[in-house]
Amino acid sequence: MIITSGRRKKCYGGIDLGGTFIKCGIVDEEGNILAKDKVPTKVERPYPQVIEDMANLVKRLAARSGVQIQGVGVGSPGMIDSEKGVVVFSGNFGWRNVPLVEELKKYFVVPVKLTNDANAAALGESFCGAGKEYRSSVLITLGTGVGSGIVIDGKLFEGNGSAGAEIGHMVIKTGGEKCTCGRFGCFEAYASATALVRETKRAMERHSESVMWRLCRGNLSAVDGKTAFDGMRAGDPVAKRVVGDYVTALAAGIVNVANIFRPEAILLGGGVCKEGETLLAPLREIFSRELFGGEENVPVKLATATLGNDAGICGAARLLM
Amino acid sequence: MIITSGRRKKCYGGIDLGGTFIKCGIVDEEGNILAKDKVPTKVERPYPQVIEDMANLVKRLAARSGVQIQGVGVGSPGMIDSEKGVVVFSGNFGWRNVPLVEELKKYFVVPVKLTNDANAAALGESFCGAGKEYRSSVLITLGTGVGSGIVIDGKLFEGNGSAGAEIGHMVIKTGGEKCTCGRFGCFEAYASATALVRETKRAMERHSESVMWRLCRGNLSAVDGKTAFDGMRAGDPVAKRVVGDYVTALAAGIVNVANIFRPEAILLGGGVCKEGETLLAPLREIFSRELFGGEENVPVKLATATLGNDAGICGAARLLM
Repeated sequence: MIITSGRRKKCYGGIDLGGTFIKCGIVDEEGNILAKDKVPTKVERPYPQVIEDMANLVKRLAARSGVQIQGVGVGSPGMIDSEKGVVVFSGNFGWRNVPLVEELKKYFVVPVKLTNDANAAALGESFCGAGKEYRSSVLITLGTGVGSGIVIDGKLFEGNGSAGAEIGHMVIKTGGEKCTCGRFGCFEAYASATALVRETKRAMERHSESVMWRLCRGNLSAVDGKTAFDGMRAGDPVAKRVVGDYVTALAAGIVNVANIFRPEAILLGGGVCKEGETLLAPLREIFSRELFGGEENVPVKLATATLGNDAGICGAARLLM
Repeated sequence: MIITSGRRKKCYGGIDLGGTFIKCGIVDEEGNILAKDKVPTKVERPYPQVIEDMANLVKRLAARSGVQIQGVGVGSPGMIDSEKGVVVFSGNFGWRNVPLVEELKKYFVVPVKLTNDANAAALGESFCGAGKEYRSSVLITLGTGVGSGIVIDGKLFEGNGSAGAEIGHMVIKTGGEKCTCGRFGCFEAYASATALVRETKRAMERHSESVMWRLCRGNLSAVDGKTAFDGMRAGDPVAKRVVGDYVTALAAGIVNVANIFRPEAILLGGGVCKEGETLLAPLREIFSRELFGGEENVPVKLATATLGNDAGICGAARLLM
């Protein structure tokens, strides 16, 4: 049993709905995860079955923790209408207008809320992760795409119909690389791990002498988001250029976000961030040089996310607090 | 005397502090301007004298309108800390850490508030101009620079230390034109009237056959933001290309803003917008094609601002309501 100042802490269910796993946790009002577990999503099933599994997992974890939950939050991929509680569209799930909140409410008497997965992660980091010292923060996740969530005064900013916060689909290079969204030159098309891998491969194809070939045992399909960084550390000038270009593009988007939102902090998530200071140090340098108003103006912290996969669970639970 | 439903409407002083004129108005809670006037700013004077003139003008107008004002709002150029009520820096004014609110409070017993001029204009349009039907809107003003103000749920979003909302300083073309802020490829460096004039002149210099030379009577210094549009209307292919490139860059920035904020409306202000549908029609076309999520997603209206110079006055007054 959990007691604070003579009273039980309130607890909430947080669900991170992913393409492979449904991840759930029971989260208290201080951001502690009391229990967590996951089950396969099996997205090919009719959606009511997926949602039933979500409900069952939350109930099982609540029972295991010995708590009564006060609400359930969900972070889901795809285009979400958080006000209506509907997954408007998810390509990976093959979902269209799935009334997720309505369906999940069949299993609970407590409130249920929904946002998209990137927003949930941002709210989680803001609640009890790298952003907890700040009233406003933006989380930018560098993965297959570039996900983003914006927290202003402790609350998610989602835009009208929760259709905003698509920072990945901000053009930073007009007429540049084609993006999955149909535009050319989006931030995502340069700053995602996918883009880094693409550029690493392109550089290797142009430079048979690159050390990176050895790092991948001559196999282009073994290239990942770490290859160019490893090559740079091994002294390869080709790899160094790939990393340099990647950092330049990443900085362009991050400085844009800083100039537009001037949050207290910008947090970077995703696998690429495991590079830590190797990535952050050059970013900070560009950052301090290019931020609007320079040294005279209000500073913006730059840090990596700390919660990893738990960010979505904590943020989803936080929706109810 | 103004009576609504048996009671007087509350009135406020709104000041639009400009490099040439101090413009003031008495604005009621419905956005009507009861009286307005302007006096020369004479920026070279010590700031207390400028501020004294601001106070006197408001008092004179309030007396002329026969109302008691409930507060005074100011929109000022430069870097502003609206929470502290300080003009942190204004290059044109030669001001640094001017405690504008504190100084102005010497003349009033009612509350005094401050924001920057672009924010005031955005709040004004949202309050009683082109944005009044919308809870959220972004005003982008195409002038010497690109000004911008963001209204979310009827309130200004200014960022930490009111240092945000610098949409003009979002890079849309990495490595592009040098911007006044020091970055390369900012939205402002492509979408301001200044940028349009620059590109018009460059095109004319490359094309002595362009109709635009005739429109300017052979005088390059007569080029303004209208020249390329006039040339296009006269059938000049060179002018048409200049306008086309300008619209492409403008659209890139506007779609970015739509994807990031997903406001209900994006409003365009500034002299270039006098082109009306000549400008808006091609923008809307790009807009509908490039907006994230396409037709499935929440729409964003595109319109021109309607208040002109009164936007700053109304928005400054609105700060107090």
